[in-house]
Amino acid sequence: MSNPPSVLVFDVNETLSDLQPMAQRFTDVGAPGHLSTLWFAMVLRDGFALTAAGSQQPFAELGAGALRTVLTGLDLDRDLETAVAHVMQGFSELGVHDDVPDGARGLRDAGLRLVTLSNGSSQVAEQLLTRAGIRDSFQHLLSVEDAGAWKPARTAYEYAAGACGTPLDAMTLVAVHPWDIDGAARAGMSTVWINRTGASYPDYFTPPTHTVSALTDLAGRLA
Amino acid sequence: MSNPPSVLVFDVNETLSDLQPMAQRFTDVGAPGHLSTLWFAMVLRDGFALTAAGSQQPFAELGAGALRTVLTGLDLDRDLETAVAHVMQGFSELGVHDDVPDGARGLRDAGLRLVTLSNGSSQVAEQLLTRAGIRDSFQHLLSVEDAGAWKPARTAYEYAAGACGTPLDAMTLVAVHPWDIDGAARAGMSTVWINRTGASYPDYFTPPTHTVSALTDLAGRLA
Repeated sequence: MSNPPSVLVFDVNETLSDLQPMAQRFTDVGAPGHLSTLWFAMVLRDGFALTAAGSQQPFAELGAGALRTVLTGLDLDRDLETAVAHVMQGFSELGVHDDVPDGARGLRDAGLRLVTLSNGSSQVAEQLLTRAGIRDSFQHLLSVEDAGAWKPARTAYEYAAGACGTPLDAMTLVAVHPWDIDGAARAGMSTVWINRTGASYPDYFTPPTHTVSALTDLAGRLA
Repeated sequence: MSNPPSVLVFDVNETLSDLQPMAQRFTDVGAPGHLSTLWFAMVLRDGFALTAAGSQQPFAELGAGALRTVLTGLDLDRDLETAVAHVMQGFSELGVHDDVPDGARGLRDAGLRLVTLSNGSSQVAEQLLTRAGIRDSFQHLLSVEDAGAWKPARTAYEYAAGACGTPLDAMTLVAVHPWDIDGAARAGMSTVWINRTGASYPDYFTPPTHTVSALTDLAGRLA
């Protein structure tokens, strides 16, 4: 491997975890399943708004608050707070994408250091990776809660570099979200975009260094 | 009027303009109408991400780029770029909400100075207010394109204060978006939330100073 990145920094929500079951949680409570996608975009929108305004709140609080906004006024089959709790419970019981276990083990076996850096809590990442049987492939599970700012603020990536004792330009962010790729690139990291769905990459964001359609393809691309 | 705000600063997209016709633009090209709401949340999400990362792009470029992401992979009735152009054309032909003309004239007639501050272009605001016959109720049409940062970054509100020659604490932001209320409040402005739909206000954002269900109710609330 020529010039291998010393640390691979993984985004967690939607990059490692599969959010597909969230649509069922919405239909469970009597709401349209397609609102799950809107809800997740709103959580990020509001989290980034707070970041842009110089503030920060825990991901779970934004998740529940944005759910109240999305679900208010719908004809739900239970009261609003019970519906919010049911949907949020689903978020903490997600599994990983099919390509994640083999992909992560392959990268670890190739001698790379793997960490996570999530806008969510470290606890959610811990439970997700433990359930998937790949917790031991990751050295550190980092959260922006300890960084003082959400990604894609530069501060968040700098925090990860400090926690790993590695300069930013020796780190590679791996994510499905173009906004994360863009922020990491602006901070000086190389980047990998996982595009599992054949999506288009917005031209207003910094392009990724590498693009793969599955995590299992990454070790070969970095070789 | 006791302690009247010297300047009312209006958000434009969705606060003055009615985005409802955008759903029809999506169905026109063969896409589900509910995607219009997701698309607008994505535009703001990505705009705020760039803001958090210290960058900025024009609203129209984000609008078109996010549309490509939303529409890719759907069974459209025309090619992707033609569909994007059709939807974006709708965005520049929107009308104002029913309560806006009388509400704006009433506030101007009460002796208040009205300006706009948009994350979009001043030209879109100019055309919108001219079509509605209320351009002359507004002193200045300001855009974050001249501020160096999108709302809700403090810089954007400071730019408006400078352009109006008014201290931030003598300005009142009027918006339907809680993220805008929150950012303006953090910058030192008082705020008015227009809640036309009976929505819930997220508890992770700074609450508004005033809440009205229509712009026509505002002059009375400020009296």
